[in-house]
Amino acid sequence: MGTTKITAIPGTPFIDIEREVAAPRELVHRAYSDPELLRQWLGPRKYEMIVDAWEPADGRRWRYVHRDADGTEYAFHGVFHGPQTVDRMVQTFEFEGAPGYVSLDAVEFIDQGGRTLIRTHSVHQTVEARDAMIEAGMSSGVEEGFERLDELVGRLGQPVAASASS
Amino acid sequence: MGTTKITAIPGTPFIDIEREVAAPRELVHRAYSDPELLRQWLGPRKYEMIVDAWEPADGRRWRYVHRDADGTEYAFHGVFHGPQTVDRMVQTFEFEGAPGYVSLDAVEFIDQGGRTLIRTHSVHQTVEARDAMIEAGMSSGVEEGFERLDELVGRLGQPVAASASS
Repeated sequence: MGTTKITAIPGTPFIDIEREVAAPRELVHRAYSDPELLRQWLGPRKYEMIVDAWEPADGRRWRYVHRDADGTEYAFHGVFHGPQTVDRMVQTFEFEGAPGYVSLDAVEFIDQGGRTLIRTHSVHQTVEARDAMIEAGMSSGVEEGFERLDELVGRLGQPVAASASS
Repeated sequence: MGTTKITAIPGTPFIDIEREVAAPRELVHRAYSDPELLRQWLGPRKYEMIVDAWEPADGRRWRYVHRDADGTEYAFHGVFHGPQTVDRMVQTFEFEGAPGYVSLDAVEFIDQGGRTLIRTHSVHQTVEARDAMIEAGMSSGVEEGFERLDELVGRLGQPVAASASS
């Protein structure tokens, strides 16, 4: 099990997250790029995840929805910016419940010899907006997402025969 | 002539700009929204301004090019985020010479009884990127743009007969 390091220095609009995953970075990058894989890990388990659009390429819009057991939906959208590679992806992030309040997220995938360090750097428009994101309990959602990512890359890393027989 | 106040507190990724314009905010907002008007004021006079796309609406991509006398082009693009109104517009901003390095800009138009206070709040991904923007001399370009905006809203505010006779 990995551990997640979340850094949010008081008085800054930044959130930095580090997490090491026991999988090669091509596989981790695939889990971030392929909407069917993304659906299987991003966010808390209690939500159904519906991916409306997710094609990492410069200027493309993305959107997904978290739906809870009683049907309440939390929708998010943004746009990919610049080159989207196995080294680095950049996107904007907007919760549709707070239109016009946007953060800018960069994620880097760093090869650790078969393992991968995922490093996320987010910047909010204000320190207050950053603080509100922390106070809304984002850390538990992030932690649970990474646990699911661990499980996903574990399944994907199995020999093909095992999944073919299932 | 208005004066421009640019604030960039050391150690933060923010740039804040304030400028008062002697025109009602509907007119100022139009100068920011209509690509034909935008072309007439945004940026230094020495560049020809080519607007490829500029339709302020949530999720729409924008792009423009500054071309100097010898044909060198500086291109920029981004995306509008959330509601784009006479109160507030939000967009991302990326110089194509530095792909993947993005800032997030919000502009507010505040009614001052026939005059308008324009308030721009930008956040960069890092303090270093913000500092590089300042050091690249953005303040002179901003200042010259606002002078041209003053001239534009002056022309637009003239009686219709005056421009019809030109």
